[in-house]
Amino acid sequence: MNRIITISRQFGSGGRTIAKEVASRLGIPCYDSELIEKIAEESGYTPEYIKEIGEYTVGKTGLSNILAARDKNGHSNYDNVFIAQAKVITKLANEGPCVIVGRCADYILKDKADCLKVFIQADNDFRSRRIIDLYGERTEKPEKRLNDKDKKRIAYYKTYTDMEWGKIENYDLVLSSSAFGIEKCADIIASLY
Amino acid sequence: MNRIITISRQFGSGGRTIAKEVASRLGIPCYDSELIEKIAEESGYTPEYIKEIGEYTVGKTGLSNILAARDKNGHSNYDNVFIAQAKVITKLANEGPCVIVGRCADYILKDKADCLKVFIQADNDFRSRRIIDLYGERTEKPEKRLNDKDKKRIAYYKTYTDMEWGKIENYDLVLSSSAFGIEKCADIIASLY
Repeated sequence: MNRIITISRQFGSGGRTIAKEVASRLGIPCYDSELIEKIAEESGYTPEYIKEIGEYTVGKTGLSNILAARDKNGHSNYDNVFIAQAKVITKLANEGPCVIVGRCADYILKDKADCLKVFIQADNDFRSRRIIDLYGERTEKPEKRLNDKDKKRIAYYKTYTDMEWGKIENYDLVLSSSAFGIEKCADIIASLY
Repeated sequence: MNRIITISRQFGSGGRTIAKEVASRLGIPCYDSELIEKIAEESGYTPEYIKEIGEYTVGKTGLSNILAARDKNGHSNYDNVFIAQAKVITKLANEGPCVIVGRCADYILKDKADCLKVFIQADNDFRSRRIIDLYGERTEKPEKRLNDKDKKRIAYYKTYTDMEWGKIENYDLVLSSSAFGIEKCADIIASLY
């Protein structure tokens, strides 16, 4: 079995940057936005559509999904994207060691790979500063932007897994990037691989 | 401000052993059962009594405490022990760098020390094997013993703090001792100090 690192993260915690840093140190691929192209190919939807409904749209039990059209298997577009995503992630994990960011990879690979399951969090000040640096100011306050994204990730994760996002028991390692900084978090993860 | 490491842990996770190992590597004291003597001295209760009501008895809102006698300040024995405990932990943190195991030290030192807040967890198999090795077989199944202790720690923590025990946001670092082993956990914590 290949050794995989899955990185779940709070919005603005720098989890994606940490993932890329870890992969580069270990000389293995990091799949993040690269997943979108692959999921698009697998599902037949456009990359733009995959990105839009991404990790943030609530499936099965969400209102948008309840109202969504169903195909002959009873699947909505959201469900089909998740199914394609699970296929893509399982295939990548079978191909070789890699780092995978978000998209329920920890759950999808639960019984299928030798997985180091990491969660990156940070305090609200750190995350607020980071999203303003990265994505610029908006009319919405940064606290609201963080809160909205977290809520959507929680709902998405709950919809497609039987576990809770950000629950301590689901991870081997939880790191606060605001306590240690991005570099040190990457050090620790790489040293544990 | 002195640099302190607080270690909260699931019963049977080896958190106490990890704490001692970290302290010995860093050459700083580790306070665990040593706290009991000090809390006894501060509160005027016997060490046996402190140990008995220890981290496991639910105060304020717990039934045993609701029924408990009150002193002239409206405090039960449980409350008085917690007050003494907070004094002892704050005093130790002021005296010099150290590792403190359990007893809400992370909460007590929240605004009073430069704290590395660690939580140690492990899967149930690891914990079951460990408590049987350390404390022997009982008539109760190990799963029940783990569950009972965890429940009591959760309730105790909730009673005396405004936070939840084992909630991801309250810690800088969460490690699974069943994933990494005791030694590796001690390595990581010592390297982050």
